[in-house]
Amino acid sequence: MVKVGIVGASGYVGGELLRILLGHPEAEIVSVTSRQHVGEYVFKVHPNLKGMTSLQFTAEDPLTVASKVDVIFLAVPHGVSCKITPKLAETGVKIVDMSADFRLKDAAEYQKWYGWSHPAPDLLEKFVYGLPELHREELKNTSLVAVPGCMATAAIVSLAPLAKAGLLDGPIFVDAKIGSSGAGGKPSLSTHFSERFGVVRVYKPVGHRHTGEIEQELKYVSGKKFKVGMTAHAVNMVRGILTTSHAIVSSKPEASKIWKAYRSMYTSEPFVRFIMDKKGLYKYPDPKITIGSNFADVGFEVDPYVERVVVFGAIDNLIKGAAGNAVQSMNIMLKFDEREGLNFPALHPV
Amino acid sequence: MVKVGIVGASGYVGGELLRILLGHPEAEIVSVTSRQHVGEYVFKVHPNLKGMTSLQFTAEDPLTVASKVDVIFLAVPHGVSCKITPKLAETGVKIVDMSADFRLKDAAEYQKWYGWSHPAPDLLEKFVYGLPELHREELKNTSLVAVPGCMATAAIVSLAPLAKAGLLDGPIFVDAKIGSSGAGGKPSLSTHFSERFGVVRVYKPVGHRHTGEIEQELKYVSGKKFKVGMTAHAVNMVRGILTTSHAIVSSKPEASKIWKAYRSMYTSEPFVRFIMDKKGLYKYPDPKITIGSNFADVGFEVDPYVERVVVFGAIDNLIKGAAGNAVQSMNIMLKFDEREGLNFPALHPV
Amino acid sequence: MVKVGIVGASGYVGGELLRILLGHPEAEIVSVTSRQHVGEYVFKVHPNLKGMTSLQFTAEDPLTVASKVDVIFLAVPHGVSCKITPKLAETGVKIVDMSADFRLKDAAEYQKWYGWSHPAPDLLEKFVYGLPELHREELKNTSLVAVPGCMATAAIVSLAPLAKAGLLDGPIFVDAKIGSSGAGGKPSLSTHFSERFGVVRVYKPVGHRHTGEIEQELKYVSGKKFKVGMTAHAVNMVRGILTTSHAIVSSKPEASKIWKAYRSMYTSEPFVRFIMDKKGLYKYPDPKITIGSNFADVGFEVDPYVERVVVFGAIDNLIKGAAGNAVQSMNIMLKFDEREGLNFPALHPV
Amino acid sequence: MVKVGIVGASGYVGGELLRILLGHPEAEIVSVTSRQHVGEYVFKVHPNLKGMTSLQFTAEDPLTVASKVDVIFLAVPHGVSCKITPKLAETGVKIVDMSADFRLKDAAEYQKWYGWSHPAPDLLEKFVYGLPELHREELKNTSLVAVPGCMATAAIVSLAPLAKAGLLDGPIFVDAKIGSSGAGGKPSLSTHFSERFGVVRVYKPVGHRHTGEIEQELKYVSGKKFKVGMTAHAVNMVRGILTTSHAIVSSKPEASKIWKAYRSMYTSEPFVRFIMDKKGLYKYPDPKITIGSNFADVGFEVDPYVERVVVFGAIDNLIKGAAGNAVQSMNIMLKFDEREGLNFPALHPV
Repeated sequence: MVKVGIVGASGYVGGELLRILLGHPEAEIVSVTSRQHVGEYVFKVHPNLKGMTSLQFTAEDPLTVASKVDVIFLAVPHGVSCKITPKLAETGVKIVDMSADFRLKDAAEYQKWYGWSHPAPDLLEKFVYGLPELHREELKNTSLVAVPGCMATAAIVSLAPLAKAGLLDGPIFVDAKIGSSGAGGKPSLSTHFSERFGVVRVYKPVGHRHTGEIEQELKYVSGKKFKVGMTAHAVNMVRGILTTSHAIVSSKPEASKIWKAYRSMYTSEPFVRFIMDKKGLYKYPDPKITIGSNFADVGFEVDPYVERVVVFGAIDNLIKGAAGNAVQSMNIMLKFDEREGLNFPALHPV
Repeated sequence: MVKVGIVGASGYVGGELLRILLGHPEAEIVSVTSRQHVGEYVFKVHPNLKGMTSLQFTAEDPLTVASKVDVIFLAVPHGVSCKITPKLAETGVKIVDMSADFRLKDAAEYQKWYGWSHPAPDLLEKFVYGLPELHREELKNTSLVAVPGCMATAAIVSLAPLAKAGLLDGPIFVDAKIGSSGAGGKPSLSTHFSERFGVVRVYKPVGHRHTGEIEQELKYVSGKKFKVGMTAHAVNMVRGILTTSHAIVSSKPEASKIWKAYRSMYTSEPFVRFIMDKKGLYKYPDPKITIGSNFADVGFEVDPYVERVVVFGAIDNLIKGAAGNAVQSMNIMLKFDEREGLNFPALHPV
Repeated sequence: MVKVGIVGASGYVGGELLRILLGHPEAEIVSVTSRQHVGEYVFKVHPNLKGMTSLQFTAEDPLTVASKVDVIFLAVPHGVSCKITPKLAETGVKIVDMSADFRLKDAAEYQKWYGWSHPAPDLLEKFVYGLPELHREELKNTSLVAVPGCMATAAIVSLAPLAKAGLLDGPIFVDAKIGSSGAGGKPSLSTHFSERFGVVRVYKPVGHRHTGEIEQELKYVSGKKFKVGMTAHAVNMVRGILTTSHAIVSSKPEASKIWKAYRSMYTSEPFVRFIMDKKGLYKYPDPKITIGSNFADVGFEVDPYVERVVVFGAIDNLIKGAAGNAVQSMNIMLKFDEREGLNFPALHPV
Repeated sequence: MVKVGIVGASGYVGGELLRILLGHPEAEIVSVTSRQHVGEYVFKVHPNLKGMTSLQFTAEDPLTVASKVDVIFLAVPHGVSCKITPKLAETGVKIVDMSADFRLKDAAEYQKWYGWSHPAPDLLEKFVYGLPELHREELKNTSLVAVPGCMATAAIVSLAPLAKAGLLDGPIFVDAKIGSSGAGGKPSLSTHFSERFGVVRVYKPVGHRHTGEIEQELKYVSGKKFKVGMTAHAVNMVRGILTTSHAIVSSKPEASKIWKAYRSMYTSEPFVRFIMDKKGLYKYPDPKITIGSNFADVGFEVDPYVERVVVFGAIDNLIKGAAGNAVQSMNIMLKFDEREGLNFPALHPV
């Protein structure tokens, strides 16, 4: 059994990590911290875990946690992780960082997308971008993982094979739709039910921070710099992301080539599904069909009229978009079966 | 009082026409037909109208209706209107057609977008495209109105000023999100609640029929042929449309120029609102804020990074996207105050 | 034109009052106050009113407002109204109080249900309980109206005819289901979308404050003291209330007698509908069919097996449950047509 | 490994059985039948199972299935099971029947609640009512299990301890709220999204068929005949049931006695949780907190004013209300760990 700790376990991502790790046959959770809930039972904050665990939140600082565990998950806000990670990394503990602080390789990109000067740029290249579909081999040989952003995950997994196969010319317009859980557990007017119910609310029309990750990873697989324009919408659901990418192509690829690109990259992937039915309800990826699972569903359509391919990526933002992807990365890093603890299907209907 | 009749009044658009016309001080509804519900009270099918009307559905054929009324609304399926309209038009009755059959001016476009040879191409040029914001003067002098498609309305109203002002280069990618009422009242697996709840379902990734209308109208205002690529999604709500248009620009316009374009075209429009707050919840158009009203909300953002302008259009699909726009067109055609019967705000919150 | 003012107009009830009064042909809104939003345009807070009004919030104190208007609406929290009303009442202005402060006739009942000693008990008997269906004649001769609680309205309107006709023995168990707008516009964890979406949350299992009003009014119509046990649930919608009342009967009445009781009390009521279909979707009252209207829908079923009648009442909580009822009461008080400003149907589907 | 078959596996209950049994370490699914989908992959009908199984539907008749398996699950409509079960039972195969056909012990009760003469009354006493919390010992020694109705499960589990402890006098009014998945997967006007969204729809005000089960089981634990009046509402969610039982008491029990009754009956139950927080959001059972799990959450409040106890039961209708309970019963029957295959928490938030 590997010992794990979770720093900042009271948020939705922390709760989902707990849910998954409690069912992981090789993991033992030995410390979960939350400043706000010190001494409280975990199930008081995450009511779905009642009857599943008697863990309590502690106020242990990250270094203390690190001294007790093999793997530490950081579910802390952006800007916090980069302050505590340098010392943590020195201890040799394996770190899985859920924040954005080590996703980008180039410190200048933090300035560009976050308006922010990175305090520990030397660590950036030591972190592996925790997307197994692109970085499995690196994950096997690292102890530092930066878990991708949720919308970035949906976009990258769905677009990478086309980029890698040279089928896209760019730019790429990523039109993203996301549920409320992506905004976290803190109440505000924007998440007030009467105001949030039924919206199709544009909350980040341009300049979304995940753009940097998407560009970085598409370049990683293709060697080519794609410009990405992202627009993010909040829609009327709690979990789920769909990215609809309108990807410019100068000469339209045949559908068979795109399928070949997907297959050549993902055939053995345990958590990527090709959605390709020509009839019925499930013709294209839909987050509804991923809720509760670690699957990323991908699909596409070539536009016969305009010079674009439309590419779809659907995930459960808290699982493949966060905690599930984190555990999948941990499994690889620890040489476990990659599916360990994650081998559950989505709920349907839900 | 003008006498009006509605052919095919049992669907959602028919019900909304009834709701609006019952409150119209200058209109008297004298005939509502439905083959399926002959003899039934209207409020049995449209339960919201209980206590508002004792009208009953009749089986009158359209010519009989025409003989009794000044204005006939055709709320019949696409492909039906074009069969009954030629004889109706001969009677001189004013026709407001809610179907797609007379929206496109060029018969070849029906072949292209509907896969269908138009049976009455000579009538196409006689119909006015019933979007007051673009065709008010023509509406004053016609007796034949083709009410625009719902998604086309949101896209055209939001994009036209930019196209007209020469601020767009194209192509334009219209990412549309729509509620369930746009699919009508007939049950199917795709509208079964357990399957439809919580979806972000791509139902028309390419080749949407409204594309033809959008291209036609943008050309009408700008003299320029824009290629449009549309992708339509069903989302978790009953009413409402948001179109997010990723419009390619080779040199990015200043925001002030775009505002100027909107103002110069729409300042006096009674049913177009500019949504332009820089803080708060209501920064961009959101269908939630239009539900129950005839408003079309428009807004935009210039992307500082990629060569695009993102343009937003939000409407209630059954009102500004159908019945409200139809009544607005009728008001203009009959020289009524354009707001008559439509001067109600949206519900909020709802 | 009658001049009206609204004190505390930034909440959902205030917004709904504004929406209705803006469409009222006999009312002119001359003052709307909000301490929090002084100087702001009303449509910044109530975005649905954009394009409908250029009113701004003021910081005027209630007495200043009273000096300018014929009718003052108090949309302030419980416990505030009773402090400002005594001086207001002295000015002779007509007062329509949306709070709970003057609904109960017996000051002891405030102690019982609110845990609270009423500061102005002498005024209690001067206020008329603003439910036109029970107190129309008194409303014609008062200048002080206490608008009923939202859940009380649904319960009373649906139960009163049976109580009056001597068909009930009691006790009565009122199982209430309400949308989020009943909780107002202030964010909290309980209204945080991710936590509130999809709930059937018991928020007041026993001792609900509206119990006192229901008992008072059932006694008013019947002369009999009924004990009421209420249980309130928050459900997954923004607007609407359904009260399901399990009313104990020692000998079961025939359905025809109950219909007769409804008819004899409500036949001429403009805003009460009997829902009595034996087939189709609309067999019993459902708040969905009232959304956006001032209707109260009532219906029932006699249990052939257990000694109860099940009685249903459905309303839009912000309209018939608050602002609409307030305007209806004002209309009566001012001898206007009772339907003035309220003659709009519900939206369907929505 | 035990071999299992599912007859009628294309519905929502069948899909949930598949989902659970695919993750059951001791079960091997060897046959799944569906007349409608013969030859199709299971994941075409249950899209959440894509990537989890390559099973295909067969047209095998139940006897053929029985010849291959140790346990056969019947997920067929009411009235079908009782026709095929007599011959199946002769084969000695273990039968877990999801239908209502063998839940009631007394054939006369079928006449009463189903209006139906039972064709195989001799089998009724041989079946065990598959509610482990009440019938665990019998389940260990049977090969015939009748899985309880979904609403009955929520009501019985929450009420049984009080009835058993002699704390209730009756009658009991069960006000039930259920999600759409309880109505199955077949489209109709009543499940059409635009009509079903946002409802609080009374669909069975009196005479609900589950009443018989509830009365039977409360008598089983208490020796006393309680009369139950049930009223069922469809609410705006896909999964979940809350039963709010207004239970009449002549002398009100202390809360501590009720807790003691729950504890004495359920302390060792793996899938019953007491919800008893005095603060926070999770004070009473809410189906939202059970979605995706096999838990039944129970709680209550004593009314200080009226002679009632309000008792709450919340479950996921497809799991504890159907497939999960079936697997739990199978586990007991086969002497497996009762939690096998069911040891997953609910999803939160969802």
